[in-house]
Amino acid sequence: MQDFPIFDSRHAHHARLADLRSDTVTRPTEAMYACMREAPVGDDGLDGDPTVHALETAVAAMLGKDAGLYVPTCTMANLLAVLAHTQRHEQVLLESSAHMFTTERGGSLLAGLAYTPIEGKAGAMDLDRLEAAVRPGSHRIRVGLIAMETSHNNAGGAVLPLAHMQGAHQIARGAGVSVHIDGARLMNAAAALNLPAATLAQHAESVSLCLSKGLSAPVGAVLAASDAAIARARAYRKMLGGTQRQAGIMAAAGLEALRTMSKRLADDHAKARVLSTRLNALGAPLPFAAGEPQTNIVQVHVGGTGMSSHQWVKALAELGVLTRPWGEKTIRCVTHRHIDDADISHTVDAFAQVLEKQGQA
Amino acid sequence: MQDFPIFDSRHAHHARLADLRSDTVTRPTEAMYACMREAPVGDDGLDGDPTVHALETAVAAMLGKDAGLYVPTCTMANLLAVLAHTQRHEQVLLESSAHMFTTERGGSLLAGLAYTPIEGKAGAMDLDRLEAAVRPGSHRIRVGLIAMETSHNNAGGAVLPLAHMQGAHQIARGAGVSVHIDGARLMNAAAALNLPAATLAQHAESVSLCLSKGLSAPVGAVLAASDAAIARARAYRKMLGGTQRQAGIMAAAGLEALRTMSKRLADDHAKARVLSTRLNALGAPLPFAAGEPQTNIVQVHVGGTGMSSHQWVKALAELGVLTRPWGEKTIRCVTHRHIDDADISHTVDAFAQVLEKQGQA
Amino acid sequence: MQDFPIFDSRHAHHARLADLRSDTVTRPTEAMYACMREAPVGDDGLDGDPTVHALETAVAAMLGKDAGLYVPTCTMANLLAVLAHTQRHEQVLLESSAHMFTTERGGSLLAGLAYTPIEGKAGAMDLDRLEAAVRPGSHRIRVGLIAMETSHNNAGGAVLPLAHMQGAHQIARGAGVSVHIDGARLMNAAAALNLPAATLAQHAESVSLCLSKGLSAPVGAVLAASDAAIARARAYRKMLGGTQRQAGIMAAAGLEALRTMSKRLADDHAKARVLSTRLNALGAPLPFAAGEPQTNIVQVHVGGTGMSSHQWVKALAELGVLTRPWGEKTIRCVTHRHIDDADISHTVDAFAQVLEKQGQA
Amino acid sequence: MQDFPIFDSRHAHHARLADLRSDTVTRPTEAMYACMREAPVGDDGLDGDPTVHALETAVAAMLGKDAGLYVPTCTMANLLAVLAHTQRHEQVLLESSAHMFTTERGGSLLAGLAYTPIEGKAGAMDLDRLEAAVRPGSHRIRVGLIAMETSHNNAGGAVLPLAHMQGAHQIARGAGVSVHIDGARLMNAAAALNLPAATLAQHAESVSLCLSKGLSAPVGAVLAASDAAIARARAYRKMLGGTQRQAGIMAAAGLEALRTMSKRLADDHAKARVLSTRLNALGAPLPFAAGEPQTNIVQVHVGGTGMSSHQWVKALAELGVLTRPWGEKTIRCVTHRHIDDADISHTVDAFAQVLEKQGQA
Repeated sequence: MQDFPIFDSRHAHHARLADLRSDTVTRPTEAMYACMREAPVGDDGLDGDPTVHALETAVAAMLGKDAGLYVPTCTMANLLAVLAHTQRHEQVLLESSAHMFTTERGGSLLAGLAYTPIEGKAGAMDLDRLEAAVRPGSHRIRVGLIAMETSHNNAGGAVLPLAHMQGAHQIARGAGVSVHIDGARLMNAAAALNLPAATLAQHAESVSLCLSKGLSAPVGAVLAASDAAIARARAYRKMLGGTQRQAGIMAAAGLEALRTMSKRLADDHAKARVLSTRLNALGAPLPFAAGEPQTNIVQVHVGGTGMSSHQWVKALAELGVLTRPWGEKTIRCVTHRHIDDADISHTVDAFAQVLEKQGQA
Repeated sequence: MQDFPIFDSRHAHHARLADLRSDTVTRPTEAMYACMREAPVGDDGLDGDPTVHALETAVAAMLGKDAGLYVPTCTMANLLAVLAHTQRHEQVLLESSAHMFTTERGGSLLAGLAYTPIEGKAGAMDLDRLEAAVRPGSHRIRVGLIAMETSHNNAGGAVLPLAHMQGAHQIARGAGVSVHIDGARLMNAAAALNLPAATLAQHAESVSLCLSKGLSAPVGAVLAASDAAIARARAYRKMLGGTQRQAGIMAAAGLEALRTMSKRLADDHAKARVLSTRLNALGAPLPFAAGEPQTNIVQVHVGGTGMSSHQWVKALAELGVLTRPWGEKTIRCVTHRHIDDADISHTVDAFAQVLEKQGQA
Repeated sequence: MQDFPIFDSRHAHHARLADLRSDTVTRPTEAMYACMREAPVGDDGLDGDPTVHALETAVAAMLGKDAGLYVPTCTMANLLAVLAHTQRHEQVLLESSAHMFTTERGGSLLAGLAYTPIEGKAGAMDLDRLEAAVRPGSHRIRVGLIAMETSHNNAGGAVLPLAHMQGAHQIARGAGVSVHIDGARLMNAAAALNLPAATLAQHAESVSLCLSKGLSAPVGAVLAASDAAIARARAYRKMLGGTQRQAGIMAAAGLEALRTMSKRLADDHAKARVLSTRLNALGAPLPFAAGEPQTNIVQVHVGGTGMSSHQWVKALAELGVLTRPWGEKTIRCVTHRHIDDADISHTVDAFAQVLEKQGQA
Repeated sequence: MQDFPIFDSRHAHHARLADLRSDTVTRPTEAMYACMREAPVGDDGLDGDPTVHALETAVAAMLGKDAGLYVPTCTMANLLAVLAHTQRHEQVLLESSAHMFTTERGGSLLAGLAYTPIEGKAGAMDLDRLEAAVRPGSHRIRVGLIAMETSHNNAGGAVLPLAHMQGAHQIARGAGVSVHIDGARLMNAAAALNLPAATLAQHAESVSLCLSKGLSAPVGAVLAASDAAIARARAYRKMLGGTQRQAGIMAAAGLEALRTMSKRLADDHAKARVLSTRLNALGAPLPFAAGEPQTNIVQVHVGGTGMSSHQWVKALAELGVLTRPWGEKTIRCVTHRHIDDADISHTVDAFAQVLEKQGQA
């Protein structure tokens, strides 16, 4: 249950409020606040901040890369990876519903690059199409980077199979092209596969890692890659305005998040499975279907209910359950540290009430 | 005096260490840490963070603008101002030693803009040259923005006279062009002129304000402008990766910095004047000259000493005084919250020792 | 029949050589050479070239637009249209196999724009997808332009139905977005629909017209649009290096091409239909299929023959018929002014010979 | 004398009209027209045009470079050189009044590059400043190219001394940076120095050569460089829309221009010297001064006459002498193939008449 105010007055009167909109709503833990208070700090724009350095080193080690670079957001980490790996006038290939394509593509325009979507399934690019797209052609813009996302936000938190990552990496290597992993929810993917994050990261030349989603740090992300790529990214970070001074305060929360929050992500996944199962069990024949979650995202397809996703979101919010529309026919529920068993029950009840009311209408 | 470790082992053994390299080395106060701990936070990428909002509102009010936008760094604030005010293929005019030109120009390349330097004195563009440059011409790239910096870093902390700002703004308005103030040290300029910051800000359509220099907040800056310009800047902030989640934690330190640190900048200026006076009084004829500081920066010209700026910086560091070379013949000393009277004496002594040793050589 | 040397020595010994690779191989007519010799010329970078001006005026009038702009190539005309219609950081929507996407996309990178492919059939974008893509969204890059191509090169010379153009234009107007027609082969489309080119052009705010394909002028294209759009395009033409001096010499050939060549394109279409019919009649069951041409392009699908398109192109060339591979399984034949009835027969014979040989293998 | 119509009706009634506005107004010779008619042509976008190829080869040989690339304009040749030599986010250093900076800078924005002006004298960059600017620095954008212009348009047709070119090239090589020569009037510089063009070209990795100024070809320019640089430039030429089909027609005029026009440029220079001498001899004390021309450009400084450059241009035009204002206080006269001795006398008379009238006013 959320114990903090939500800044939308419509919901302020609810005894119970389950905020399933995103795992980005998570607040720092007490331990994180303590770490922030005690962190030794320096000037990261001058001779370095020791806590930032410690975080960069820890993430690089965890992902099996040479070096790390602390940045304000995972969007910037992804953009820096793109800038570090490419030259002018190149293509970046990525799955057609990848967050880097659907939401972060604006950054590519600043870099003078073409993002080319590759069709796929469950967030995984079709490898035949990838192979065809990576091949050089007389009129073709050279491919500078291939990017993958795991777990995959728009594919409902789907996790890329390790064999897929291996296959994509092999195609990339064959063409002399680097691979980047958008790790906005990398630790969820690792938890779902029950593998060390480094096992996933080995199939890419760079990996971003977001600290402010399920991991609950307030802000920040780390890009991990080779020393050379990090050096290029560091220069671009300055250009974009991402080089902060005493950033160790925030990095301290990130270090604590890595230590303690990674291992609890499996709980969020379990709760997502319970939510999905209980929603699908609300009675038959049901006019909607909850997807089977691989991680902490449950997509509920409401196309058959006679209500749009926006109407559903509004109706659920009036019952104290916050969700988000994902297109016209789907709503998205995300479990995280502030969602407990009672919130799941509260959520299932709210869905049931909306369904019942709709049935009577 | 600095009571914190410096991450350069050469200096670790000094009983006293005066770090005059920059005011960016300032650490948060106890009160700032307390504010960070208590700040109500939200998700600034979703429905907003209340403390970020409070900071944005406070800065906008203080500078007499519609709205504010919190960003990780002043470099990003300046870049967003440029992006918000310009169209594709335009020029930005700025004084030839402005920080936005000498150090932040990389960002202009991401935006497809041409930064054109205008010669000036003490950080103030020559207004005749500005007027000529702003005039449209058949082959000329359209001017999209004029930028000023006050206090002016590379001009030794010089403060733009109000009449100059007014003159530049008038030229800009005559040409239908917006003006931006790079306010990396705006509060120092306001303190030096003994004027409200809004009086300076009225001569520009947008102003950036850095919180992490003399103001001592660990990170962050705010861009203040019209509602329309802030809306454009907000979209570009997302593109650059500057939209953070629970950023209210850092914004809380910024709010506290504004409340308590602005009024103490005059102390830093007084110490800079004392430092300059005492350095120039070390004996005559002196082979060097300390500039007369308008704010918290003292430029010491060492061209006549037979030692380069780099040699001076090294020699002073060995005596526990950290400074920075500023070109081949000048070193820069910056006063700030961690520099007390004893540090000034310690610094003057170190200069004297180096001079003496050099005289004997 | 071609009466000119081909610069590939393998083919030099053929008594008859049919060059069906493209209509870009067409040479100027005697009348064009005469016009080039007699054209009054000026300095188009200074106060204008009268023949260029006459051509620009003629094309604008023919297409029902305010003004025209002469450029060296249709690729530049399309790029200038994109630059004239868009602002920084916008999307251009276009059919996923449009020439502007598959071959000319590099130019978009120079302009900092995102080209977004829309799936379609026979070169016509799916209008539902177009409508969805043009809709603004919170993370979405603003749409600045929609581009159509008719006749459509990669769709085998397909002609966009007028109702489709009208539909796309309506969607664009509803969203306040301009439409551009890539008219590399606009006159072929007009001939196929038996409509004035202006009737097609009314469904777009700008149209490019290539003079050097079936129209047989040696070089050059014209962009037609509103006065305001042409003024913007003119400034960008200078930037790209497309502003030529005494260009009236080439423009004279273009004027003559418009006068005399437009009306003979129907002959090329008729020959393409004959070629397709005769190829499909070579016997049954045939292991290949020639598409039914709407204009002057015949796509021959050779996927079932056991030979790749590259092998076919080579085998046909050895028999004096030049064609081009269009992907792995298709070869493209283009009829034009230098292809007469005997060339068609010669081509059909060559296909028959290759088939026969292949059947024996 | 010009024997062709000028498209400004104000001047149409003059018995004699001397057009000294630019050498770009030159028309093709009869021999050029004959060459255009007879040139073997191909498709330069497909397997090449033999006349284009011959011109590219001839220019490369003349300039001592591997290869040449034919382009519509010298502006495009310069832009392609910049694109071929640089990576993303680099600086191009060039003299502050170079045509590439004052007039062609727009193209740099398309390429995401920063053009940095270096102060100089008579078109020659100050080599100390160049050396300082080329040095890498922590915040400095990497230098990707140094560009020189000879003869130098805005420096009144000044010719760079060979020693200067050598010096600049040495600095460039020391820094691992390429040099490009903007050869809009390279043959004028070679004629003035009485040296083969290759002797100048040896101090650069690439050279552009304009065919449509004093050389009198109607359009076109050639970029000469190493095979690798030309390959990159060729790809960018396609991107910009500079790849024309049967361009051999125009290239034929260029070949003829090289053969016959280069050697007559010394005549233009001689006429410019006569014009300057006779203007300065109009009587003393004179309120204006004609610069001493090194090539075919005479700058006349009219600042002391009480009339602006625009007023002078208008007054001279009314007497049948066309010139151009070059800033507020200077007018520019350019000699070329269509200016004979009688035109020079006519021009001197016109200046005298305006002076006399002004003296009486």
